[in-house]
Amino acid sequence: MTVVKSTLPEEALGVTGTALQETLVDLLGLSLIGKQAHWNVVGPRFRSIHLQLDEVVAAARSHSDTVAERAAALGVSPDGRPETIAATFALPGAKDGWVRDTEVVELMVSALEAAIGRLRERIEATEKADPVTQDLLISVTADLEKQRWMFEAENHPREDAADQ
Amino acid sequence: MTVVKSTLPEEALGVTGTALQETLVDLLGLSLIGKQAHWNVVGPRFRSIHLQLDEVVAAARSHSDTVAERAAALGVSPDGRPETIAATFALPGAKDGWVRDTEVVELMVSALEAAIGRLRERIEATEKADPVTQDLLISVTADLEKQRWMFEAENHPREDAADQ
Amino acid sequence: MTVVKSTLPEEALGVTGTALQETLVDLLGLSLIGKQAHWNVVGPRFRSIHLQLDEVVAAARSHSDTVAERAAALGVSPDGRPETIAATFALPGAKDGWVRDTEVVELMVSALEAAIGRLRERIEATEKADPVTQDLLISVTADLEKQRWMFEAENHPREDAADQ
Amino acid sequence: MTVVKSTLPEEALGVTGTALQETLVDLLGLSLIGKQAHWNVVGPRFRSIHLQLDEVVAAARSHSDTVAERAAALGVSPDGRPETIAATFALPGAKDGWVRDTEVVELMVSALEAAIGRLRERIEATEKADPVTQDLLISVTADLEKQRWMFEAENHPREDAADQ
Amino acid sequence: MTVVKSTLPEEALGVTGTALQETLVDLLGLSLIGKQAHWNVVGPRFRSIHLQLDEVVAAARSHSDTVAERAAALGVSPDGRPETIAATFALPGAKDGWVRDTEVVELMVSALEAAIGRLRERIEATEKADPVTQDLLISVTADLEKQRWMFEAENHPREDAADQ
Amino acid sequence: MTVVKSTLPEEALGVTGTALQETLVDLLGLSLIGKQAHWNVVGPRFRSIHLQLDEVVAAARSHSDTVAERAAALGVSPDGRPETIAATFALPGAKDGWVRDTEVVELMVSALEAAIGRLRERIEATEKADPVTQDLLISVTADLEKQRWMFEAENHPREDAADQ
Amino acid sequence: MTVVKSTLPEEALGVTGTALQETLVDLLGLSLIGKQAHWNVVGPRFRSIHLQLDEVVAAARSHSDTVAERAAALGVSPDGRPETIAATFALPGAKDGWVRDTEVVELMVSALEAAIGRLRERIEATEKADPVTQDLLISVTADLEKQRWMFEAENHPREDAADQ
Amino acid sequence: MTVVKSTLPEEALGVTGTALQETLVDLLGLSLIGKQAHWNVVGPRFRSIHLQLDEVVAAARSHSDTVAERAAALGVSPDGRPETIAATFALPGAKDGWVRDTEVVELMVSALEAAIGRLRERIEATEKADPVTQDLLISVTADLEKQRWMFEAENHPREDAADQ
Amino acid sequence: MTVVKSTLPEEALGVTGTALQETLVDLLGLSLIGKQAHWNVVGPRFRSIHLQLDEVVAAARSHSDTVAERAAALGVSPDGRPETIAATFALPGAKDGWVRDTEVVELMVSALEAAIGRLRERIEATEKADPVTQDLLISVTADLEKQRWMFEAENHPREDAADQ
Amino acid sequence: MTVVKSTLPEEALGVTGTALQETLVDLLGLSLIGKQAHWNVVGPRFRSIHLQLDEVVAAARSHSDTVAERAAALGVSPDGRPETIAATFALPGAKDGWVRDTEVVELMVSALEAAIGRLRERIEATEKADPVTQDLLISVTADLEKQRWMFEAENHPREDAADQ
Amino acid sequence: MTVVKSTLPEEALGVTGTALQETLVDLLGLSLIGKQAHWNVVGPRFRSIHLQLDEVVAAARSHSDTVAERAAALGVSPDGRPETIAATFALPGAKDGWVRDTEVVELMVSALEAAIGRLRERIEATEKADPVTQDLLISVTADLEKQRWMFEAENHPREDAADQ
Amino acid sequence: MTVVKSTLPEEALGVTGTALQETLVDLLGLSLIGKQAHWNVVGPRFRSIHLQLDEVVAAARSHSDTVAERAAALGVSPDGRPETIAATFALPGAKDGWVRDTEVVELMVSALEAAIGRLRERIEATEKADPVTQDLLISVTADLEKQRWMFEAENHPREDAADQ
Repeated sequence: MTVVKSTLPEEALGVTGTALQETLVDLLGLSLIGKQAHWNVVGPRFRSIHLQLDEVVAAARSHSDTVAERAAALGVSPDGRPETIAATFALPGAKDGWVRDTEVVELMVSALEAAIGRLRERIEATEKADPVTQDLLISVTADLEKQRWMFEAENHPREDAADQ
Repeated sequence: MTVVKSTLPEEALGVTGTALQETLVDLLGLSLIGKQAHWNVVGPRFRSIHLQLDEVVAAARSHSDTVAERAAALGVSPDGRPETIAATFALPGAKDGWVRDTEVVELMVSALEAAIGRLRERIEATEKADPVTQDLLISVTADLEKQRWMFEAENHPREDAADQ
Repeated sequence: MTVVKSTLPEEALGVTGTALQETLVDLLGLSLIGKQAHWNVVGPRFRSIHLQLDEVVAAARSHSDTVAERAAALGVSPDGRPETIAATFALPGAKDGWVRDTEVVELMVSALEAAIGRLRERIEATEKADPVTQDLLISVTADLEKQRWMFEAENHPREDAADQ
Repeated sequence: MTVVKSTLPEEALGVTGTALQETLVDLLGLSLIGKQAHWNVVGPRFRSIHLQLDEVVAAARSHSDTVAERAAALGVSPDGRPETIAATFALPGAKDGWVRDTEVVELMVSALEAAIGRLRERIEATEKADPVTQDLLISVTADLEKQRWMFEAENHPREDAADQ
Repeated sequence: MTVVKSTLPEEALGVTGTALQETLVDLLGLSLIGKQAHWNVVGPRFRSIHLQLDEVVAAARSHSDTVAERAAALGVSPDGRPETIAATFALPGAKDGWVRDTEVVELMVSALEAAIGRLRERIEATEKADPVTQDLLISVTADLEKQRWMFEAENHPREDAADQ
Repeated sequence: MTVVKSTLPEEALGVTGTALQETLVDLLGLSLIGKQAHWNVVGPRFRSIHLQLDEVVAAARSHSDTVAERAAALGVSPDGRPETIAATFALPGAKDGWVRDTEVVELMVSALEAAIGRLRERIEATEKADPVTQDLLISVTADLEKQRWMFEAENHPREDAADQ
Repeated sequence: MTVVKSTLPEEALGVTGTALQETLVDLLGLSLIGKQAHWNVVGPRFRSIHLQLDEVVAAARSHSDTVAERAAALGVSPDGRPETIAATFALPGAKDGWVRDTEVVELMVSALEAAIGRLRERIEATEKADPVTQDLLISVTADLEKQRWMFEAENHPREDAADQ
Repeated sequence: MTVVKSTLPEEALGVTGTALQETLVDLLGLSLIGKQAHWNVVGPRFRSIHLQLDEVVAAARSHSDTVAERAAALGVSPDGRPETIAATFALPGAKDGWVRDTEVVELMVSALEAAIGRLRERIEATEKADPVTQDLLISVTADLEKQRWMFEAENHPREDAADQ
Repeated sequence: MTVVKSTLPEEALGVTGTALQETLVDLLGLSLIGKQAHWNVVGPRFRSIHLQLDEVVAAARSHSDTVAERAAALGVSPDGRPETIAATFALPGAKDGWVRDTEVVELMVSALEAAIGRLRERIEATEKADPVTQDLLISVTADLEKQRWMFEAENHPREDAADQ
Repeated sequence: MTVVKSTLPEEALGVTGTALQETLVDLLGLSLIGKQAHWNVVGPRFRSIHLQLDEVVAAARSHSDTVAERAAALGVSPDGRPETIAATFALPGAKDGWVRDTEVVELMVSALEAAIGRLRERIEATEKADPVTQDLLISVTADLEKQRWMFEAENHPREDAADQ
Repeated sequence: MTVVKSTLPEEALGVTGTALQETLVDLLGLSLIGKQAHWNVVGPRFRSIHLQLDEVVAAARSHSDTVAERAAALGVSPDGRPETIAATFALPGAKDGWVRDTEVVELMVSALEAAIGRLRERIEATEKADPVTQDLLISVTADLEKQRWMFEAENHPREDAADQ
Repeated sequence: MTVVKSTLPEEALGVTGTALQETLVDLLGLSLIGKQAHWNVVGPRFRSIHLQLDEVVAAARSHSDTVAERAAALGVSPDGRPETIAATFALPGAKDGWVRDTEVVELMVSALEAAIGRLRERIEATEKADPVTQDLLISVTADLEKQRWMFEAENHPREDAADQ
């Protein structure tokens, strides 16, 4: 059912719609595993990481809204239902139960890293198809790269992680 | 692994932990299908319902955080991972693609109604087990009942819904 | 006409609906006599009591809204029309014309006292019928009891009120 | 009992006092029937009208305070007690129970229209008696005329109101 | 020196300019004696009156600014220098040293009463000369009459003032 | 097409409607030439005048909204379309391209002066027809006269403008 | 007269200057027809669309300021005078008088659609000429596409628009 | 001296008054030892714990005020004097001088644990005596349990605390 | 245990540390007796004094934090534990139970007077030892002297206090 | 009449009281001549100086309040009545009528300079008498010296003032 | 030492890292010379330029933070130490001592112009290397170009600068 | 060139000017090395220290502005140019590249300690020369000593720093 008419030609729309839908799932998934870690983290750095995770969640939620509304604005129905996220979420996930603070940091670094890698491909893919969408993906990437650095910086020095 | 010690005796903890975990999944699920409808609603009442849905989502997100942190405070690790929500979400879900405004209203009425019914059982179950948790479930219920009424009121008169 | 469906069984609904409707009239009446006193008080404590009465009015208005919306949420049409208030308001009322500050204090103590007595009965009545409504009535009571204390404290020492 | 001395000569005071007392009752009555409709409206435009009614109520409450304090400032004791409102409220009232959204709109248009007609007479009556009071009645009128237009605009086109 | 050209004809300008200059002095004087009383009041109602006086001062300062800028806008240089105020201030003044709270109330009632009487004459005088200025004087009067009532209400009952 | 019914008799409506429509065009035009000058001013006083012009624009926009909604409230459809403004705008306009700061000041003084003259005529015309509208035009005039003075004051001394 | 020196080479400046001047007129025109509809809309969805139009107007005004200041920053005098808008505005305009809500929605969809089409051409044209300007046009487009979607979503289902 | 009359029967009042007075001392004591730790903590987690302690203090202060005013509202004079706290404070106290961060965490976990245990007994005791007071004690408990979890989570893993 | 190194020489540190520790106890004690009076005051001036006491408490709490952190900053561990306050608090204390408003005023005047006297000695003692600490004690004194005046002014006229 | 008891010995009180009373008059006078200039300034720098003068007035008013309340806190009745200011104001005053912007700058520089000179003498005089008052005078001086610099900086280069 | 891993390939990282480090130094340098001028400017336009410079400083500081954190996010350690800025700052610098307002304007125009030219080269250089960084440099450029225009506009007309 | 005249005698001015200029360089340098550490810190305490450093930077920037404007107010041109900072900055500096969190803490402790030592000398030097400047240096010192303590407290226990 074509309900909302697109302002993009069909082919460009295909590329752009896929980029947006995949980004939506990545961001919704990130917001869920961020909250999961926010609640389950334990260890001496609990408070610091508990707060930092809420910033990731806030960023992921706000970007997911912009991304989904961008898809809708182009006439592509966005899909963020629980079953869709569970079926298509492709980043490293969260494990069950309480998690040590050092593990949380590693999880976030690798989840964000994977998300960034996928976003950089979509930035390239949308350059010709729709520079407006590309611009949006660029801001999402800038934000996630900043978050990744912050967790990465906490992870150092890796070899003597045991003495944290 | 017992990480966070509980201030409740074991049996009470079992009842309370289950009530909180189930409520968590209901609320996270509601926040996802609320957003899904927020993005995909179409029809003459688009703007009004688009905004109303965001209030449901905000309430669901905020209550889910309180509920999960209550579980953690009792020493029960909360589980809000995508796969858990997809596997255990028991309320009526959202359908795929664009949705007419009248259908969205009906979906929200029935999803909220189901959530409320389940919450009322847990209010009873936790009365002896943990009055602190019961009090929290009572506030969640009060909020969802208010939301349900607002959608229900929009649904009236049902028989001539076609002419909306 | 049953328009908004209730989430409560019939009998519980009867008890709860009555409790909410009676509380609504008490609160709307309090807000009107509070304003009446706010405008008509005279005496050396004018400013202090003029301001204090506006806090009672603000509380009464805000609680009346919550109570009426709770009734609606349960499928009971709330009735706050002028004729209904005039016909069913059962607390001590305000007298005509300017009122001395000491009299205003006494009026408020007795009006609040009567309202609290009636609320405590409804708290008991709704315990089984609807713990969500009971919880709401408990907060209203807590607030009115605090207001009553403040006026009562100003009324002391009663025997030498003449020398105030 | 003459308690607060007036800054107006007796005759002017008579005209002005009557104008203010009548306006006070109109506004308090409006605030009550506005809230009544706010709680009892049903129909597809529920949310929109529910919110709009709260703006009418807020305006009516705030103007009623200014009007009553203006009376007091002139040495006329204002009367806003439940029994006075019930006995002297002369605008079209609200009916019992749930009300369809289209009916609410019609009720508000006719209640505001009646209030405006009465205010315009008082504006004329107070021109010589007290330009300060006249100025206040002018602002109340401007506000109510704006509210009336907004409901009136929603009422159009009248002939096919049935298909809303 | 004609510096700022007027948008009013000469005669109208004379009337209006005088009304504004006299009002400016009344308001600046009020703000000074209001502060004087704010600092020097003593007695059991100290705090209440100390705060109320600051509201009078804030109102007087803000109106004096509007009045002076209105004069300037009409091409009449406003004069609010210390020597001008001292020479032309015509309201009852403040006495030297600490002042009992009951006396402060009486002083404010009589100073405001005098100011109001003078403003009402200027409202009449400017009606034809400049309705824009008249409108401004009307708002100043409304405000001062409200302040006067509040002090007057505190002054009651006068005959037993001794027992406050 | 009579859509929104008026609360004014026909003749009064004619006078009032014309006054409001003409004021609307004056204000929308002022807001456009104010912005034009805001962008194109050059000279040593650039910053000061750039900011001052934005205050004129903000005032003109806000008043134009009130004026247009007042017309609608009276049942007169307001007309603020580009072609209407271009066809009926009667104040001195802005010239093309960059403009020296001293010229901008002169332009604003003469545009505001013309607008004020036209408003004063409408204040007189609406006195009997609709005092509510008159009151609104009075506030617009007060504001524009204040703005005019500020630019006029900057224009002084005119004869030695060269040495600025 | 070259007043503000450009930081762009001549040819790039020609392309960029034209793109910015055309966008300025589109946005100023949109802000005027948005307000026109804001005041003249009638029908059951009045309130909802009245509010939504003010968001379009706020966005158009704010973007027009950024666009004009960007032109000035590049040394190109922006032209937003009434006569320029009337002469060069190329989007579908607003019709005279009251407008039914459904028509307003259609007008906004088509005006925004036309604006977006023209912006997309300018995004391409400025890519090499000035990426800074291109980036600005991209944000304007993103915003207008979001607004267009919202009106478009309200327009659905088109075939049974009669029953709204 | 019976000064403020109670709205509770005598026996209920005895139970409730004791519960409130004991809670008051617990909370005032907690606020003092929380600040003591806030000032004296040292160690690599200084900043994080320094801030977290201020949240405990803010919560304890705010709850102590509500608890004391609830006692007063029931006619029971609350006692929070230094000598009373020192004599009746029954939670684990703070030691003298600088304290290592890990010790602070342990102190807070055990002080909060003791406070919670005592509160749970009072919740039970007041259920029949005064549900309004019970409701208040429930909120205090919820808050302290959340605070306890946060310190507890930081304390993990206990056995290798040495490597923090 | 020397944990935080001082930036002051030993002797100066001794003087300064004592001054700060004594001031800390005075301020914490003041905050506790201020709250005690805030809850237990009765009499016609209840509201006014209830609010004024909260300003004293807020000031005392905020200064106590600054004073304790100043001690810590100089390497002196501050001691604000309940037992320390009870053992070393040297100002006039609060009596048990409800207190008449006039007595509260007298208590606060004498407690503040004693605190000020002690502070003035410490200002002298720290002048050479540490001007930074002296500066801090000067601000505390200025604040307490202002509070003392306000209570003192309410106490006047003393001889006829009976007629308040 | 000794009403408010002083916390200073008699001699110190004499010095301090005089310093505060003189400073009060200087500041009140400055606030009046600052406003006078704010209203009467003309010339190309009108807007800039009009705004800057309001900052001087705001500072002078706020400091005058602190200074007067300091006097009262020490038991010295402050005197800020119009006649006192007129009789004892010793700084360079404002001349009558419109004033050229360059003259305003010169007036402010010399008035502030005179005020600062007098304050520096009082800082010396109060050093022993009352360091708390000295500290207050120091802050007033710091503020006025900053204001003086800003006007002085505008006055440069003096010799070619003609070409401004 | 590779501490923070990069998400960019080595070559792209080289280009991007250099662009960011150079921009960082330009912006930190701008913030320092902007403050220097803010403090040292003299002349009749002092206030206007003093304020405008603080906007440049705020923008430069905020962009410098974003740029440095972007470098860190890419794994490139940013260098903003005093010695690095002094050694590598390549824009026109500030001269010693007080500076006439006209000279400040010229300095800012030329410093901003140089910064913009360097940024435009880096925009080109990073287009392929890292579009995320390019997007960031584009916003910095847009901002600086707006600032440059504002100073440039004040500089006009250059030939008769003498008569400013 | 003597541009801004001083309110201090020559000799006093020399001492004061030097104190202010040296303090300015210390503070600007601190703000730069604080930011450098803010960007380059790595290690498990990254987030905590990253945030704490921004508070040091904010304090240093704000104090540097006050110090420089104080110099200007006294007629001494402040010098905060990059080359001046690089040449005269005398505190321990920041090293190149990423820095471990424990090293950052040590760096900040020693830089702040050095700054404080230098400030204490200037407090003594300016006591006679200019108490206004002395007062300003005292507040700067108080703030830096508080910052130093916070880093120092984090540094404990030093001997087992390895196990952090």
